[in-house]
Amino acid sequence: MQNFNYMTPTRLIFGKGVVEKLPGTMARFGKKILLTYGGGSIKKIGLYDRVMELLKDFEIHELPGIQPNPKYDPSVLDGVRICKEQQIDVILAVGGGSVLDCSKAIAAGACYDGDPWDLITYKVKAKAALPIVDIITLAATGSEYDAGGVISRTETNDKIGYIDPLLYPAVSFLDPTYTFTVNKKHTAAGIADAMNHTMEQYFAEDTTLLNDGFCESMLRSLMVNGRKCLENPEDYTARAEMMLSCTYGCNGILSLGNSPSGWPCHAIEHALSAYYDITHGEGLAIITPRWMRHILSDRTIDRFVKYGINVFGIDASLPKQEIAEKAIDATYRFFESINIPMHLREVGIDESRIDEMAHHIAVNEGLENAYVPLTEQDIKNILLESL
Amino acid sequence: MQNFNYMTPTRLIFGKGVVEKLPGTMARFGKKILLTYGGGSIKKIGLYDRVMELLKDFEIHELPGIQPNPKYDPSVLDGVRICKEQQIDVILAVGGGSVLDCSKAIAAGACYDGDPWDLITYKVKAKAALPIVDIITLAATGSEYDAGGVISRTETNDKIGYIDPLLYPAVSFLDPTYTFTVNKKHTAAGIADAMNHTMEQYFAEDTTLLNDGFCESMLRSLMVNGRKCLENPEDYTARAEMMLSCTYGCNGILSLGNSPSGWPCHAIEHALSAYYDITHGEGLAIITPRWMRHILSDRTIDRFVKYGINVFGIDASLPKQEIAEKAIDATYRFFESINIPMHLREVGIDESRIDEMAHHIAVNEGLENAYVPLTEQDIKNILLESL
Repeated sequence: MQNFNYMTPTRLIFGKGVVEKLPGTMARFGKKILLTYGGGSIKKIGLYDRVMELLKDFEIHELPGIQPNPKYDPSVLDGVRICKEQQIDVILAVGGGSVLDCSKAIAAGACYDGDPWDLITYKVKAKAALPIVDIITLAATGSEYDAGGVISRTETNDKIGYIDPLLYPAVSFLDPTYTFTVNKKHTAAGIADAMNHTMEQYFAEDTTLLNDGFCESMLRSLMVNGRKCLENPEDYTARAEMMLSCTYGCNGILSLGNSPSGWPCHAIEHALSAYYDITHGEGLAIITPRWMRHILSDRTIDRFVKYGINVFGIDASLPKQEIAEKAIDATYRFFESINIPMHLREVGIDESRIDEMAHHIAVNEGLENAYVPLTEQDIKNILLESL
Repeated sequence: MQNFNYMTPTRLIFGKGVVEKLPGTMARFGKKILLTYGGGSIKKIGLYDRVMELLKDFEIHELPGIQPNPKYDPSVLDGVRICKEQQIDVILAVGGGSVLDCSKAIAAGACYDGDPWDLITYKVKAKAALPIVDIITLAATGSEYDAGGVISRTETNDKIGYIDPLLYPAVSFLDPTYTFTVNKKHTAAGIADAMNHTMEQYFAEDTTLLNDGFCESMLRSLMVNGRKCLENPEDYTARAEMMLSCTYGCNGILSLGNSPSGWPCHAIEHALSAYYDITHGEGLAIITPRWMRHILSDRTIDRFVKYGINVFGIDASLPKQEIAEKAIDATYRFFESINIPMHLREVGIDESRIDEMAHHIAVNEGLENAYVPLTEQDIKNILLESL
């Protein structure tokens, strides 16, 4: 077991109606709020109006229009500019992981005199960040309980994960009823995203019995509850458990003490969505089973066997190779069963830029440190298998 | 799923050699330290000398001799007095859960003008507490990652759980090598303690698939690694995983969103150790299987079936009643196999005060709110079964 240093300072306020506590929470941080959100779904579900009513005694400035795969230009830059011009005290992010990720980069950029890209690329270490409160409307990324965000820069096809302990939200409000209106496509993508977060930590060296069990529980819960959310979008219990599960995806609790390793599916998917702006969870679902097939070997087979037995209930008396292959197949079939397009061509990606993407990933993502190290050729093969 | 509000502000610094970081951590809180510890085992293993060397630039006052089932008088009172007289900045607790629990009560008492018992009995709500740092030398209670402590007052046979968010340790240092010298008796008691913390949360209403899986993983890990620790006390990996598992016992992460309910085995055991000063984990191990048999019914059988299949691997095709009984039997036999005395008489408790203890528990512990409510007669029957 590896040494670790761990704390998650975020307060989770979870359940139906919890947003009513917003004014008291915001008052701790000041009067001047930057309200960040996306394409307007928070207006459709009435959340925008409720937030504005609750915060009528605060001074609110708005940054709307944050896109999926949130963009450095204009969103991060606009947000930083508003924070500086208006001397914002606290950011309130209302939406899904993209809105929150973008807000994290803004929070750091607002406290830095130079180009915020310096921080995102770790050229300069942030010294401070504005406090962040969020109200989450999509169960997926776990950004509400972690210190990271992913920011895209269109002109360079960069999609960079930016992590700093300064970026933990101070408070995350999680009301599962706000996810009732998430459509089937994005509900399914959220399931795949959170499952992949778990798998990236499960397929690693020197995991513990404890963490393996936590991960297996996450995967079973996400599959069972995710399917219920798709069948009945207003199933509160299922939406709530899916929301809680997603929250644990990236804050480290699933892998304390494990040997650190790269997240290969995320690394590959980041290039896909940087080049083609696809839905992150769908890209992950497409890549994951192909990556699994690629890394299955004598060295890794025991892990796949454990995964197959404990996550999918595959008969433990079968030969190892058969269990492992069935497990990979079950992974593919689960994603397919929740109607995720399982080929790159279905999300608009053909072979034309595969060489370029494979090169970009190999150069930028450091997958020589993954559970199974991946070369540029490995990455290219996985992408070709995924077409 | 129930609403919840959750944050654990404690930083865990975990692994071999992490205590070397102590000076930097302590400096954040001030110069004047109250060093609390127990019967001197920290001197035998060299930890006391190392701490004194590391903290040679600090002003250290000592409170030694804190006993298991830590006592209000003299330990809490002495600690509070020293803190006030010496204007202590921070408490450094070095030892097991008892030393840390006692230190939490001191931390609150030091910031209160009246009798600290007012705080422990919630007659007065604490407004502040000194910061606490700990170095844990026994894997068991989880006090290093929770906001509670249990304090005994001998003259009234009270053993009270005192919980307040002010009492979270600021930093917990967890070096598994300091547990190498824990003897078999206390290693086994620690396993039982942490297993029981998990079971008290698992046997509850409205649990989630996610939390159930987390608890089952905890129990399997504690049994497997606990046994390894007994077989080879210097098995670093097993000691480390046991230490991490124990850490999650009482900080709520195993039951977020579950319906709250009393902890019946703890309630009963608190009376046993208040009246007879027995080892807490042994008391829990004795009570737990008898409590299980007592509450097994048509209403609860499905939970016992799940427990039996997922924790002990009992054949799922057997009749429910048989699985449940095998699960309870396996629980008993596990504790017996790690050489815990499994009858009250073996730890010096006879029938003479059972009526009195049952009455004390029924009046003070509120077990009408347990998963299965327990009357005074129920409690008496469980105690008689445990003789």
